[in-house]
Amino acid sequence: MEIEIKFRIEDVEKVEEKVKKFAEFVIDKIEEDLYFNSPIRDFRRYDEALRIRKDIEGVSITYKGPKIDKETKSREEIKVGVDNYDKAVLLLKKLGFKEVGKVLKRRKIYRHNNVLICIDSVFNLGDFIEIEVVSDGIEEDIEKAKEEVFKIAESIGLDRKSSLRESYLEMLMNK
Amino acid sequence: MEIEIKFRIEDVEKVEEKVKKFAEFVIDKIEEDLYFNSPIRDFRRYDEALRIRKDIEGVSITYKGPKIDKETKSREEIKVGVDNYDKAVLLLKKLGFKEVGKVLKRRKIYRHNNVLICIDSVFNLGDFIEIEVVSDGIEEDIEKAKEEVFKIAESIGLDRKSSLRESYLEMLMNK
Repeated sequence: MEIEIKFRIEDVEKVEEKVKKFAEFVIDKIEEDLYFNSPIRDFRRYDEALRIRKDIEGVSITYKGPKIDKETKSREEIKVGVDNYDKAVLLLKKLGFKEVGKVLKRRKIYRHNNVLICIDSVFNLGDFIEIEVVSDGIEEDIEKAKEEVFKIAESIGLDRKSSLRESYLEMLMNK
Repeated sequence: MEIEIKFRIEDVEKVEEKVKKFAEFVIDKIEEDLYFNSPIRDFRRYDEALRIRKDIEGVSITYKGPKIDKETKSREEIKVGVDNYDKAVLLLKKLGFKEVGKVLKRRKIYRHNNVLICIDSVFNLGDFIEIEVVSDGIEEDIEKAKEEVFKIAESIGLDRKSSLRESYLEMLMNK
């Protein structure tokens, strides 16, 4: 289970300066995400997602389940590393999945204890910050994790009420 | 495209002795294959297959297309290496695929030029030999590859007419 909140940011340098004060730098990379829809149920309708990601760390296939609350974009995530991008795309297509869109972004990752803070510059969309923590999925633990990520957001001046639940793909589709 | 023929063998030691005379030993391993069916079309009916394989070399997901002729089990194959067996199984299940059966076998692989010769002892089924070569899929090339694998089969005393097209999974299901 991935407990995750997201905010649009206007002054990305200012936000990053604040993050640097309490979190350590992990990586700066370009992520290329290709999203697919399912032939058996419309992932948009059921709030699921399937994507292949390519970045400097490798290639992965990720399934994301429906979001579990109304305030965050927390959801189940199953991520499998794969050894070949083109073959992974071909495999999903042969199994009936359809390409729906691509999201390209520069992502800088910082870490504070078990929390990851991603500063994303999304091509054609703007700058965002994502704050996430992995939870074992027990209800009590989810609530604790949620408060933890919101506390970090508030400490860098982000208003809880402006937390976004839309994915980058949805935002790009709705433009 | 994988051009492949298969035969049941009674005296496995005798066949292996013949193979050793012209082919070099590659690997001796246990392969554990878990097969899935699709929620959108019955793979048995359309002669397709989807499996996750686990062996000492790693884990992979493979899609196999319909067989392309009546004499061999040649077909398109897309194989992607993955980094985690349990997550790969969970991913396919979340995407709607259903487990249909497991095939467990000991496989000894020999190589002669571009041809792989697999001597398989399949749990609950018996001993088999598979002779295969990878083709680029051009028709002329497929015919050439087919004659190449049948020539090897005949050189070790296997009758072309007894070539089997059923998969191990189908054989186990039909028992």
